[in-house]
Amino acid sequence: MQNFIPGNPDYKNSIAEKMKANHFMNFIGFKTTLVQPGLIEGNLTILKEHTQQIGFLHGGVIATLVDLVAGFAAFTLVKPGDHVVTVEMKVVYLNPGIGQTAFAKGYVIKAGNRLHFSESEIWVNNNGIDTLIAKGYATFAVIDLLI
Amino acid sequence: MQNFIPGNPDYKNSIAEKMKANHFMNFIGFKTTLVQPGLIEGNLTILKEHTQQIGFLHGGVIATLVDLVAGFAAFTLVKPGDHVVTVEMKVVYLNPGIGQTAFAKGYVIKAGNRLHFSESEIWVNNNGIDTLIAKGYATFAVIDLLI
Amino acid sequence: MQNFIPGNPDYKNSIAEKMKANHFMNFIGFKTTLVQPGLIEGNLTILKEHTQQIGFLHGGVIATLVDLVAGFAAFTLVKPGDHVVTVEMKVVYLNPGIGQTAFAKGYVIKAGNRLHFSESEIWVNNNGIDTLIAKGYATFAVIDLLI
Amino acid sequence: MQNFIPGNPDYKNSIAEKMKANHFMNFIGFKTTLVQPGLIEGNLTILKEHTQQIGFLHGGVIATLVDLVAGFAAFTLVKPGDHVVTVEMKVVYLNPGIGQTAFAKGYVIKAGNRLHFSESEIWVNNNGIDTLIAKGYATFAVIDLLI
Repeated sequence: MQNFIPGNPDYKNSIAEKMKANHFMNFIGFKTTLVQPGLIEGNLTILKEHTQQIGFLHGGVIATLVDLVAGFAAFTLVKPGDHVVTVEMKVVYLNPGIGQTAFAKGYVIKAGNRLHFSESEIWVNNNGIDTLIAKGYATFAVIDLLI
Repeated sequence: MQNFIPGNPDYKNSIAEKMKANHFMNFIGFKTTLVQPGLIEGNLTILKEHTQQIGFLHGGVIATLVDLVAGFAAFTLVKPGDHVVTVEMKVVYLNPGIGQTAFAKGYVIKAGNRLHFSESEIWVNNNGIDTLIAKGYATFAVIDLLI
Repeated sequence: MQNFIPGNPDYKNSIAEKMKANHFMNFIGFKTTLVQPGLIEGNLTILKEHTQQIGFLHGGVIATLVDLVAGFAAFTLVKPGDHVVTVEMKVVYLNPGIGQTAFAKGYVIKAGNRLHFSESEIWVNNNGIDTLIAKGYATFAVIDLLI
Repeated sequence: MQNFIPGNPDYKNSIAEKMKANHFMNFIGFKTTLVQPGLIEGNLTILKEHTQQIGFLHGGVIATLVDLVAGFAAFTLVKPGDHVVTVEMKVVYLNPGIGQTAFAKGYVIKAGNRLHFSESEIWVNNNGIDTLIAKGYATFAVIDLLI
């Protein structure tokens, strides 16, 4: 993890406000536990509604967690008034998501003028045992006006 | 779109059963409109809960649609008793998701013995105008026993 | 394939000049056969030096062809003086590259102000039979000054 | 970096043999410096023939290095007689490749029964200063018979 300088001295409030208005994040129930420059962590209590037909955490939920933590990690580094939008992301599914809680961590690996690159890790805790179930690799564009 | 032979003569019932048990798909409200060998289409009525802070369709919802249509398209081609699991996927976000309905289409581009490759398109209809907002490129593993 | 307007009326000469100076392209021996706005096609005579230990076309050669045709396709759409640089690319390997000639085609699927998105197809001709061996999905940034 | 057990007690000789026959690797001039279970490192002296029109290391060379180190890292973990083939890879280009030597490192992040997942880092040394210019994320299939 590199040390980054926040793009906005007030980045914690700025993120908190954005998260309150992020309807899909709240709909699935993701809660942030750590907000630092270039780094976001959080948890999801896994409910039946998050699973696919075999009972594993759905690949779409996992991709959503990747996007959320990496996107907000990128957002901590932009200037006041700037936004980030996801350009593209890859998610690799390493192990089945079986457990009671998911933990997501997203961190920036390169912050450019116009593009931020990130990696994410998604872990599941099953009866006290943690397993890395997915990694994500995403690109974000910094924008000052909505497209 | 290639012509594929279904892996299971009863693939339509098999898919219907799986979809009934796909809790996250039902939680977000995605409805299938077309099931053919190697091809799945469907719709999502865009609600506030599907959006991010700017009001666009959330990247996680889009990734979920990519995974759903491509995964079920791959599933139409496996033998009775076999399953598919997502190995990895890439999603590119081409335009902001602004509109009332999302349309998703997933199709297989190569069906191998052990791996199926697919592409997906996500469109949004905004007051009658259709825009391609994302494409997805995913790999699925065919498994006969759960890992 | 969409219809695109070239970013530069003189794009054919501009591409020809760039290709002359693209040392790695010339080192592997790739030849362009079609240059249109948002679309590039070309061929590679497959030599022993392009193969890996099993005798298949090397994955690195295939990735190079993906980058070349998609990158030059993106370049046809930029204004005089602008350049493109590859932000990221995904390559999927669908079939082993066995044959005498490779054919590569790259086309833009979205040309934005700052980012161009493309897809590529890599085919191999083996004794007269064409097989799609790989597809590529890449993002390019439009830059007016070198970074 | 995890600790992996080699799939073959004789994996070093097995890799050395494969590398001797990897024509494209030898054509571009890549030299391995470290072979351990799940980990490969090596160097490339950057020559004019490896560059694109602006003088940067070509994206195709970078993708080739990603494929080589990650693929051989995956190969250290397979049983005698087994092979690996690249299923797909993503490369992100973080900084321009300007320098005299490239350093490549590939490591496995998950070794499954049938699929191995890896990450790669590509660095360039320019007059003594090292810069991370790209990362790669690839999936390999373990095969016991050539397809």
